[in-house]
Amino acid sequence: MAGKLNWGIVGGGEGSQIGPAHRLGAQADGHFAFVAGALDADPEKGRAYAQSLGVAEDRAYGDWREMLAGEQAREDRIDLVTVATPNATHFEITKAFLEAGFHVLCEKPMTMTVEEGEEIVRVAEKSGRICAVNYCYSAYPMVRHMRAMVARGDLGKIRLVVASFSHGHHADARDQDNPRVRWRYDPAQAGVSGQMADCGIHALHLASFILGDEVARLSADFASCVPGRELEDDAMVNLRFEGGAVGRLWTSTIAIGRQHGLDIQIYGEEGGLRWAQEQPNQVYHQTLGGRTEIIEKGEAGISEDAARLSRVVIGSPEGFPLAVANIYVDLAQAIHGGGADGLYPKAVDGLRSMAAVHAAVGSAKDGGAWVDARPPMLR
Amino acid sequence: MAGKLNWGIVGGGEGSQIGPAHRLGAQADGHFAFVAGALDADPEKGRAYAQSLGVAEDRAYGDWREMLAGEQAREDRIDLVTVATPNATHFEITKAFLEAGFHVLCEKPMTMTVEEGEEIVRVAEKSGRICAVNYCYSAYPMVRHMRAMVARGDLGKIRLVVASFSHGHHADARDQDNPRVRWRYDPAQAGVSGQMADCGIHALHLASFILGDEVARLSADFASCVPGRELEDDAMVNLRFEGGAVGRLWTSTIAIGRQHGLDIQIYGEEGGLRWAQEQPNQVYHQTLGGRTEIIEKGEAGISEDAARLSRVVIGSPEGFPLAVANIYVDLAQAIHGGGADGLYPKAVDGLRSMAAVHAAVGSAKDGGAWVDARPPMLR
Amino acid sequence: MAGKLNWGIVGGGEGSQIGPAHRLGAQADGHFAFVAGALDADPEKGRAYAQSLGVAEDRAYGDWREMLAGEQAREDRIDLVTVATPNATHFEITKAFLEAGFHVLCEKPMTMTVEEGEEIVRVAEKSGRICAVNYCYSAYPMVRHMRAMVARGDLGKIRLVVASFSHGHHADARDQDNPRVRWRYDPAQAGVSGQMADCGIHALHLASFILGDEVARLSADFASCVPGRELEDDAMVNLRFEGGAVGRLWTSTIAIGRQHGLDIQIYGEEGGLRWAQEQPNQVYHQTLGGRTEIIEKGEAGISEDAARLSRVVIGSPEGFPLAVANIYVDLAQAIHGGGADGLYPKAVDGLRSMAAVHAAVGSAKDGGAWVDARPPMLR
Amino acid sequence: MAGKLNWGIVGGGEGSQIGPAHRLGAQADGHFAFVAGALDADPEKGRAYAQSLGVAEDRAYGDWREMLAGEQAREDRIDLVTVATPNATHFEITKAFLEAGFHVLCEKPMTMTVEEGEEIVRVAEKSGRICAVNYCYSAYPMVRHMRAMVARGDLGKIRLVVASFSHGHHADARDQDNPRVRWRYDPAQAGVSGQMADCGIHALHLASFILGDEVARLSADFASCVPGRELEDDAMVNLRFEGGAVGRLWTSTIAIGRQHGLDIQIYGEEGGLRWAQEQPNQVYHQTLGGRTEIIEKGEAGISEDAARLSRVVIGSPEGFPLAVANIYVDLAQAIHGGGADGLYPKAVDGLRSMAAVHAAVGSAKDGGAWVDARPPMLR
Repeated sequence: MAGKLNWGIVGGGEGSQIGPAHRLGAQADGHFAFVAGALDADPEKGRAYAQSLGVAEDRAYGDWREMLAGEQAREDRIDLVTVATPNATHFEITKAFLEAGFHVLCEKPMTMTVEEGEEIVRVAEKSGRICAVNYCYSAYPMVRHMRAMVARGDLGKIRLVVASFSHGHHADARDQDNPRVRWRYDPAQAGVSGQMADCGIHALHLASFILGDEVARLSADFASCVPGRELEDDAMVNLRFEGGAVGRLWTSTIAIGRQHGLDIQIYGEEGGLRWAQEQPNQVYHQTLGGRTEIIEKGEAGISEDAARLSRVVIGSPEGFPLAVANIYVDLAQAIHGGGADGLYPKAVDGLRSMAAVHAAVGSAKDGGAWVDARPPMLR
Repeated sequence: MAGKLNWGIVGGGEGSQIGPAHRLGAQADGHFAFVAGALDADPEKGRAYAQSLGVAEDRAYGDWREMLAGEQAREDRIDLVTVATPNATHFEITKAFLEAGFHVLCEKPMTMTVEEGEEIVRVAEKSGRICAVNYCYSAYPMVRHMRAMVARGDLGKIRLVVASFSHGHHADARDQDNPRVRWRYDPAQAGVSGQMADCGIHALHLASFILGDEVARLSADFASCVPGRELEDDAMVNLRFEGGAVGRLWTSTIAIGRQHGLDIQIYGEEGGLRWAQEQPNQVYHQTLGGRTEIIEKGEAGISEDAARLSRVVIGSPEGFPLAVANIYVDLAQAIHGGGADGLYPKAVDGLRSMAAVHAAVGSAKDGGAWVDARPPMLR
Repeated sequence: MAGKLNWGIVGGGEGSQIGPAHRLGAQADGHFAFVAGALDADPEKGRAYAQSLGVAEDRAYGDWREMLAGEQAREDRIDLVTVATPNATHFEITKAFLEAGFHVLCEKPMTMTVEEGEEIVRVAEKSGRICAVNYCYSAYPMVRHMRAMVARGDLGKIRLVVASFSHGHHADARDQDNPRVRWRYDPAQAGVSGQMADCGIHALHLASFILGDEVARLSADFASCVPGRELEDDAMVNLRFEGGAVGRLWTSTIAIGRQHGLDIQIYGEEGGLRWAQEQPNQVYHQTLGGRTEIIEKGEAGISEDAARLSRVVIGSPEGFPLAVANIYVDLAQAIHGGGADGLYPKAVDGLRSMAAVHAAVGSAKDGGAWVDARPPMLR
Repeated sequence: MAGKLNWGIVGGGEGSQIGPAHRLGAQADGHFAFVAGALDADPEKGRAYAQSLGVAEDRAYGDWREMLAGEQAREDRIDLVTVATPNATHFEITKAFLEAGFHVLCEKPMTMTVEEGEEIVRVAEKSGRICAVNYCYSAYPMVRHMRAMVARGDLGKIRLVVASFSHGHHADARDQDNPRVRWRYDPAQAGVSGQMADCGIHALHLASFILGDEVARLSADFASCVPGRELEDDAMVNLRFEGGAVGRLWTSTIAIGRQHGLDIQIYGEEGGLRWAQEQPNQVYHQTLGGRTEIIEKGEAGISEDAARLSRVVIGSPEGFPLAVANIYVDLAQAIHGGGADGLYPKAVDGLRSMAAVHAAVGSAKDGGAWVDARPPMLR
């Protein structure tokens, strides 16, 4: 790829978890130079922090509107903006940058409502700009390899996908007044869903991504295991994909002893796959009547989709920050290519997964009734 | 324990899988002498096979009725009979032996219908005899240890149990005419349920056993992933226990690459546990805010419930056949003790799990509606 | 196999670990009836314990000489005697029973000295009786399968074997006065070697067994890591096999956190194998340029050597007690067959491994000098 | 840390494995700007490639001498140079940059001979500049945590360390003419040692690093398992540390089925640790008489040495490229701090490990004789 691209970020201020991951992701492979940012809700803190990270004074903005105006006015305007602000603001900021002609990488969830999600899809399409969503687990080399295996028919027709994103980090009832935990189960701040919108949504996207198929219908069972929570901290969702595959998706925050807890199993007519995010460089594969074999990142003959996103040799692990970096690799290629192609998650993926979360909320309230999981515009 | 007990078996003829497991289970620890049997549907084959295994000619019976009559007439009659015949005959044979005053170990499922199950419970109670059901996974030392941990409050109040019994051994669509597979998905032979009644029922029992609690309500989603099957080969069941715990139970026969596939996770207010049957000598335990630690069979200070069922030192594995043997250890102690105490699964457990399977069938047919999982006599 | 064989045991009295393992091993599969024993150094305790286990009064002997005389005089004399007494007595008892025409299974180490070992080999050969040694790890189904793979050339010519038997159960310096630990490091009681003779010897045998090759030369480094020990509690031995393969063998009692710690890796021109006793039902196999695959006990197409020693289906684990039972399966077949064939470990294997231990002791004393590992009679 | 540092690299041209790892390592966390390079033995290719990576034309040098002269002449000269050229050139280039007042990060092995190593140590000391060596595995957060645990006495006095770096990637005898493999076993190109100098040296450093102790004496057994190789492709080295600990170190290139194969076990009076590079975010720990527990990167209360080198939350893996980046984090802090403190590997570590490799070569040639492992200047 020829030439470094210019990159900026809205959000991700001092002390945030997500800011460093994006900065590392953008810079690690040398595709992007970090040149602009509106990093903090407090304008002064944001400006100072951006400059401490090497951003020039005139591109260390006080807020996203100032940044949008400032960058629009420049010849060397940023090629990509990352939106890593609180969830409720994603819609407005993403929409504004797209309409102004910028490529955008938006943190998940892309929007709070299905209607907003549909609006972003329309705006992105009209703008001709990239609108990517940071479902970064889909950018692990071995996840891409699983998708390639499914696509080329290694497993035959897919019958079943079983996914979970279940950890135990919000299991402590004494966290009721801990602000870092409490907001997640408060509808006023988190919206209609707790853990399903926060983590289950990643598993939902991952399943669709690997299958190359979309969820059509679902039935959900939500539970609030820790007393006093209004939103679910544990959920089970049964799925039916458009192509007929069955899905089982479990997500939880009270599974003490599970750390990250994102894993997936794919079963087809001719074989099965198992992968877990905590050991992301191996996939377990078995063909019908054969033995389980371990596919390794970096092995000879791995699919090109995986090989291009791996930096070091077989047996040398690559982890989560470089999965985020892989989204930026995809975006750099897409931007250089002038088009919006690539396997990175797009606005329509952000919309679909958010629509499925809303559908699950409705099903759970209705005693597990089967409901349409698709956004109205895609039915 | 003083003195060997006399043991006989109905079923388990030449070529059966289950017969050798019961013979090993009964004899391995020296508690039972194998002295009587009606081993085969073909009387002559059954008599010959029993004698080849060391049973005296006059106790190598042609069928179970002959065996019942013969043993009743003897001073040295058998102390325990194992019923390991085709599922549809369990009810009749178990009932007859109980009524004649014999202790019985019945293979699972104890009966085909809930009504029959209730009848067995009544008969067993009236007879004062032991009626055990071979949910043998509950007799692994480390399963007993998990139960002991839950009972003594190590995990606090239980919030969630997640169990699966999912393998890939019936995933081949070309097995449609394979008699060893076909009957399992044929209502005429298997009854109302396929995989749920065959394997899911073990996971159901295991969850109740460890929790020391019973399933109150459930909602099920069944799928027949292999074309042409009338009964389910994959099922997801959401549970609510009487004590309030949530349950998630997945069972499948099409999960290619999973071998035995029975595992369980238990989550409480104060900790979590994970155990898998394929590596049964370890339990993973984490306390709230602590680290995951590995509890080993045979370690110093293990609960007495586990210690008494382990034969060799820490690190030396014990497997499935000795879990079956542990049921016989329990039964020998119960018989010697003159009572029916012990942790072995009993008729009421056989009834409850069969009722839950029937409830799941009904729920799945009704779009996942929540239904009462309990047998009428226990509501 | 037709008919039960008669079996007796010397040693294995109340409270011993090894007695129950042998009784279970002999009886589990129904090949042997436990009819005679001299179980304890205290004649009265031995007689009483034998009878409590179902042995008839006239065959519950006070000592091994009484048992030898008693059994010789009977028509229904035992077909096999197991010698499970303190190590220093193995030689005398085994020799006497062989000379009297009995088949013998001797616990390891077969003898204390190389000279005694050679004498047993000569006596066994002259007697025409079976003299087996309880290197029971070699009877795991998957160990037999590895041997079969090597024998049929799946790995090509073997280049390297890496074995360890390293646990942490004697790591506590405060055990200096614990009689269960102390004797192991006291030359007066344990002989020339501590951990190498106790555990390393199993790994030595296992390596030779799987390779179908014998150790020719070795170089050793011994350490006594816990202060005050005269014998080694940690040893590393480098090996050269007669066929040219290189060996690396580590054994330790101070590796805190390892439980049983017996594992082995085999590397040839065309592939590699890894197996660990704590999870004995799987072997990891990779062919040159291929992927690691998991070979499962009980899988379709497993070698006959493994299939005949497995009792339950794939995914259902079988453990250590049934590996001991497999030695008895082998012996029952050998006795019924009238010959001494079979893969069970024999006197010559007991001799070779003891000679290698003595050679390692000498090498370690001589600064790691390379020495001949073979017994004089086999050079 | 205030302000980006300027960084350049010698070597690491197009197609090299190590160049991208260093570029990612230097840039990922934003501590260094990549501003200068002499990337290729072919001056034109090197200049072009550097510019394609964003280096300005006047700092895209044709060779290292030109780069040294060019950078010396600049106000904004580089703060750190990485030497990633063929092994035989490390000495000359590292020495020249140090003498010119630059901080240097040198790839391993630092030099080809012990004498050269001693010279670098002297030059570095005299210069007052940082001379780091890229033993990057020591910069994994959990390796740092193990060192911290040992240092604060969690394991008591260390008795034993067992390390291996054994893979199977040079096991194919048909690679005899493969230039990527062949040179490694050719003394004319590789020097006195094959696998020991290439991979074993990392395990040697790792053991010393975690123990905070140095190898005093050693005894080695080398083997060339693939016919035709003059240098070892498999080696076992027994160690004695200055503080009395015993070491066992195995390294191999013919262990088919092992991928990266770097792992280490540490055993002390009071506990044991196990860690493997392929799953680098977990350490298995057991205290004497306790259970094995899993220490997770990112857990609450992890040592500061580990916490400062971890970027994402518990359960989110970080891999090899970020271990390299951690060396750059250390160096940025050391440079900003104005001193040479920090846990990064230094010239003396490069010297010690190279001296031990040479000692092992001598011992192996001398039948495993015990030899002094220390460089003359440190005896």
